Amino acid sequence: MADPIEFYFDFSSPYGYLASTRIDELAARHRRDVQWRPILLGAIFKFTGAAPLPNIPIKGEYYKHDFPRTARLLSVPFKLPTAFPIASLAPSRAFYWLQEQNPQQAKELAKRLFKAFYVDDIDISKPENTLAIAAGIGLDRPALAAGIETPLIKERLKKEVQSAMDKGVFGSPYFIVDGEPFHGSDKMDQLDRWLATGGW
Amino acid sequence: MADPIEFYFDFSSPYGYLASTRIDELAARHRRDVQWRPILLGAIFKFTGAAPLPNIPIKGEYYKHDFPRTARLLSVPFKLPTAFPIASLAPSRAFYWLQEQNPQQAKELAKRLFKAFYVDDIDISKPENTLAIAAGIGLDRPALAAGIETPLIKERLKKEVQSAMDKGVFGSPYFIVDGEPFHGSDKMDQLDRWLATGGW
Repeated sequence: MADPIEFYFDFSSPYGYLASTRIDELAARHRRDVQWRPILLGAIFKFTGAAPLPNIPIKGEYYKHDFPRTARLLSVPFKLPTAFPIASLAPSRAFYWLQEQNPQQAKELAKRLFKAFYVDDIDISKPENTLAIAAGIGLDRPALAAGIETPLIKERLKKEVQSAMDKGVFGSPYFIVDGEPFHGSDKMDQLDRWLATGGW
Repeated sequence: MADPIEFYFDFSSPYGYLASTRIDELAARHRRDVQWRPILLGAIFKFTGAAPLPNIPIKGEYYKHDFPRTARLLSVPFKLPTAFPIASLAPSRAFYWLQEQNPQQAKELAKRLFKAFYVDDIDISKPENTLAIAAGIGLDRPALAAGIETPLIKERLKKEVQSAMDKGVFGSPYFIVDGEPFHGSDKMDQLDRWLATGGW
């Protein structure tokens, strides 16, 4: 099997959520796996000078219109959360904690977390909410609660963010396939075509 | 005929150039006219805090890769100009000066200016270069040279930029069709679909 697609996203990113509902199916059509990689855009924005889209004058209004419009186009349920944007430390740490034990289940947790945030309006930046969602798929809640507080997991997340930046990741979603980068959920048609044709 | 598509762009914008090679044909398929509207992103960036893409850390490298990649996908000739980005006062003023007399020829001038900048590597921020290109399609060079220096034309451009901002324009290209906004050349497939279906 060819190399997996690297899929970088922030749990706080609407377009990251939209991409998360489609990337596995897209990859499977090309016989590729997907490596899910949550990151913290806040840390990266310090280098690029960017800000969360909805907070930007003029631009913010457009994106608050485009998030649900793009979701409707893709037939994906979407509601801009009440608490938005959020710092996504808790869900990201939970993901990496689980990933070290069960990568497939970590992906399932990520999907549940995204759904909780963008469909059920649950503030997943609060550790107790992330823990409750994890418990809902059978995870050991006390073990996860302790796990996301370990220096090892905190350090793991920092390293993932740094490694992403080193690879050029500056937004969410961001895909790398065979070294080729694609940024944004609107680029997924081009990503699809790249996989089908080997590039242009 | 239905209302025209408003097409906002900065002559310095690579994606504005790419869009300019396709928007008239796209619109014609839906029996729409296109109102071309050059603007100055520099003035708008003061409000949004944005910067020219290639100047942004990390992000800049991606876009310098994506400009030619997108151009290849669309089979549009493209070369990142030696002088880039530029302040596009001279070409924008020339456009509006001509537009008041001959809107169709103004569109032709805009296409020539884009080609000069993105294919022939001519710095169109220099008034003498913009004037030479205009002369190449039969315009009266002294009249245009005087025209772009009149307070009336300088004011016209300022008003166009302000009017664009008031309508929510923050980048290039930016399209408005029947009140619906689309930003970016990668959104043109969605714009096409919106025109075909009346929205979703």
